[in-house]
Amino acid sequence: MSMISLEQANARLARNQSVLAQTETVKIGQCLGRILAADIVSAINVPPADNSAMDGYALLSEDWQGPDHGLEISQRITAGNPPLPLKKGTAARIFTGAEVPPGADSVVMQEKCRTDGSSVWMSEIREPGGNIRPKGQDICKGATVLRAGHRLRPQDLGLIASLGIAEVDVRARLKVAIVSTGEELVEPGHELKPGQIYNSNRYMLQSLLESWGFAVVDHGITADDPDIISDVMAAASRNADVIMTTGGVSVGEEDHVKAVVESLGFIDLWRVAIKPGKPFAFGEVLGTPFLGLPGNPVSALVTALVIARPFLFACQGAGQQEVVPLKQVALFDKKSSFRQEYLRVRMGSDGAEMFDSQSSGVLYSTSWGDALAVQKPNVDIQHGDIVDVIPFVLFS
Amino acid sequence: MSMISLEQANARLARNQSVLAQTETVKIGQCLGRILAADIVSAINVPPADNSAMDGYALLSEDWQGPDHGLEISQRITAGNPPLPLKKGTAARIFTGAEVPPGADSVVMQEKCRTDGSSVWMSEIREPGGNIRPKGQDICKGATVLRAGHRLRPQDLGLIASLGIAEVDVRARLKVAIVSTGEELVEPGHELKPGQIYNSNRYMLQSLLESWGFAVVDHGITADDPDIISDVMAAASRNADVIMTTGGVSVGEEDHVKAVVESLGFIDLWRVAIKPGKPFAFGEVLGTPFLGLPGNPVSALVTALVIARPFLFACQGAGQQEVVPLKQVALFDKKSSFRQEYLRVRMGSDGAEMFDSQSSGVLYSTSWGDALAVQKPNVDIQHGDIVDVIPFVLFS
Repeated sequence: MSMISLEQANARLARNQSVLAQTETVKIGQCLGRILAADIVSAINVPPADNSAMDGYALLSEDWQGPDHGLEISQRITAGNPPLPLKKGTAARIFTGAEVPPGADSVVMQEKCRTDGSSVWMSEIREPGGNIRPKGQDICKGATVLRAGHRLRPQDLGLIASLGIAEVDVRARLKVAIVSTGEELVEPGHELKPGQIYNSNRYMLQSLLESWGFAVVDHGITADDPDIISDVMAAASRNADVIMTTGGVSVGEEDHVKAVVESLGFIDLWRVAIKPGKPFAFGEVLGTPFLGLPGNPVSALVTALVIARPFLFACQGAGQQEVVPLKQVALFDKKSSFRQEYLRVRMGSDGAEMFDSQSSGVLYSTSWGDALAVQKPNVDIQHGDIVDVIPFVLFS
Repeated sequence: MSMISLEQANARLARNQSVLAQTETVKIGQCLGRILAADIVSAINVPPADNSAMDGYALLSEDWQGPDHGLEISQRITAGNPPLPLKKGTAARIFTGAEVPPGADSVVMQEKCRTDGSSVWMSEIREPGGNIRPKGQDICKGATVLRAGHRLRPQDLGLIASLGIAEVDVRARLKVAIVSTGEELVEPGHELKPGQIYNSNRYMLQSLLESWGFAVVDHGITADDPDIISDVMAAASRNADVIMTTGGVSVGEEDHVKAVVESLGFIDLWRVAIKPGKPFAFGEVLGTPFLGLPGNPVSALVTALVIARPFLFACQGAGQQEVVPLKQVALFDKKSSFRQEYLRVRMGSDGAEMFDSQSSGVLYSTSWGDALAVQKPNVDIQHGDIVDVIPFVLFS
C-alpha cells in the first residue's frame, strides 16, 4: 500500500467510471440541478416575430415627414394580440412586447410623441429597426441551446420554457448508498455511553450528496460484524448505483469491511497523499462501485469533495464539474509536509485567515471556515503569499 | 421617477425589511440550507474523552525502558467499548477512535511495535500525549458553535450531529408568491398563437427561489384586467410573506398592476441605474411586501440576483449573504453607459469572455455564460483590463 497522488487516485477512478443513471422525462418545474440526457434544440424562433421594445408608436420610417407632420393612428396593438398590416401612411399605437405590424419598420418611444387621440406627432424617429426586437434575436429555430450532460440552473429552465418545452429528458438521480461503520457511533438524540461518539458523517454526507442532486439510500450504522456487514453491502448493491462507506477501511484487525468487500468483489486500499484524507478505498460489491471514505469527519468531507465528487458526477452522466481555485493572500504561516494539504480558512477582504487547529479531528474548523486553501507538497506558506483557495460554495 | 443607484435601491429595501419567517423545529436530516433561529451551544465535549488517533498500543510513557524491554498486554480496547484503568507497567492493545485507558498517556502506532501475542516491544515511543486526540479537542462543553441567522451547510449539519443534537430551531421557509403578468404569455407545452410568447420567468424564478430555500406560492399568469389582478394580489398577500411579480409594472396605459397595488397599499416605481434591469417596483399589498421585477427575463434574473436576493434573505432571517466578486481579465472591449452593467460572460483560464449580444432580450446569454461581469458606470472596459466578475454559483 504505497502512497499515490490525488491525480493518480482520480485517474484510477476515472478508468472505472461509467454513466449509471437511466433517463427519465421530467416536467421543467422539477428539473433544477438535474442533468440533461439529450441536447435541447429549439423548434421555434425566439421571439417568434418582431416585437416592440418600448411603449410608443410603430410606423414605416419613410412615412415620417418631420415633427410637424402628424400621422393618423390606424390601430392599437397590445402584447399578446396579433396586429393587422399597417395601413400605408399611418402609425400604430404599440406597447412593449407587442408584435410589430407588417408594413412598419420602426418604433418611436412615447416620450418622443405628442397625440390628440386620433393622430400622432413624433419629434424624431430612429433608423429602420429602431426599438424593435427582431424575430429570432434570442434563439433561431433549429439551434442547439444546451447539451446533454449539462446541469440545469434556473436560467436554463427559463430558457427551455421560452422554447415552449414543458418537460425534458434528464438522468434519473444517481442512487448512492451510505453505510456508516464503527461500533463507537451513536445517533444524535440518544445518550452517549463511555467510549462512544455521535455519528456526524451520516448527516454531513447525506446532505452533501443531496445538494449534488443524488438520491441517498441510507443504510444507517453497521455493527463491526462480518456477517452483518456482508448483508448490508449486498443490500446496498441492490438498492443503489454506488456504495459509499465511512470508516472501517484500514488494515486494522477490527476493520471487517475490507474482507467483506473482497469476498463480494474487489477492494483497493489507497493511501492518497492528501491531508486530511489519506486512507481511501475503491472497489466493487457485486458489480456496484464502492467508495470507502475515512471515518474521521474532516477527512470524510475532504475526500468526498476532491475524490468522490468527480466520480459521482461522472456516474450521474454530468459533464465535467470543474472546480477552479481562487487566488488569495495567505494571512498565515504554515509549514508544508510531503502531502497536499487542504487547510480550513475563512476569506475576508484582506485575504484568507487559517483556523488555529488544522487537526483532522476538528470538524469545527470546516464550519468556522468558508473555504479550503490548497497547500502544495513541500511548499511552505508564508504570510502574504498568494495561495489557491476553494470556497466551499464552488463544490456545489 | 428619477433614476437611483443600486446602492440606493438596496438601502431603501433594507429600511423596509424585517424577519417575516416563524420558527419551527426540524430534524437535522431535513435542515440543509435552512436558517438557524437560535445559537447552537454544545452540551458536551467533543470528543467526550481522550481517544487514540492510531491502531497501536497505549502505555504510560515512563514505563517504556527501551526497544528490548517488553510490556505485558493487559487489555484490548476497541472503539465504542469503555476501557479499564491501565494496570501499572503494562500496555493496552488499542484501535483508532477507542478511548485511551486511565493511567496511559501515549499511544505507539503498531508499525513501531513487535508482539508475541502476550507482550509488546516498541522500537520508539512519542512524548506524553502522542497519538492521542484529547477530550474537547474539537469542541468544549458550553461553546457556541453556530449563530442564529447561519445558513446550514453539510459540514454544519455534521457538526450539530457530533454534539448529539437531533433537531434544531430554524426559520420556516419564507413563502414567496410569484405572479406573472402579461396577456402575451403562454405556458410551455401549449401552442403559440400570433403575438404570444412563452412564459419563461415563472420557471426561472421558481427554481431560483427554491434554490435559496424559499417556499414558492405560484399564482400563474394573470390577465391584464384590474379586477382579476386585484383578486390575485389579495390572495397572494394572504398566502405568502412576500409577493413577487414579473412584468406589468410601468407607466404604460396597459399596465394595471401599479393602480391595483396602489389601491391595496402603496407602490414606488424605481428606475435603478443598472442594465439590464432598470424598472423595479417596491411596495406593499395589504401589509405584504411587494417586489415588481421587469418582465424581460434577463432583466428579471439580474434584478432577482442583485436587488431581490438580499431583501428576501433578510425577511427569511438569514445573516448577510454577501457576494464578493472575483477579479478576472476581460477578454473583450465594451463601451460603458451611465448605468452599471451586468455583462454575461464565461470564465476560462485566460479570463472572462463576453457573449456577443448583450441585449436584454437574449436570455440565451445567461445560459451560455457562467458569470456576470460588473461594468461600472462611465468606465469603458478594454481587452486585458481587470474587472469584477460574479460567477452565478456565488449567488446560491
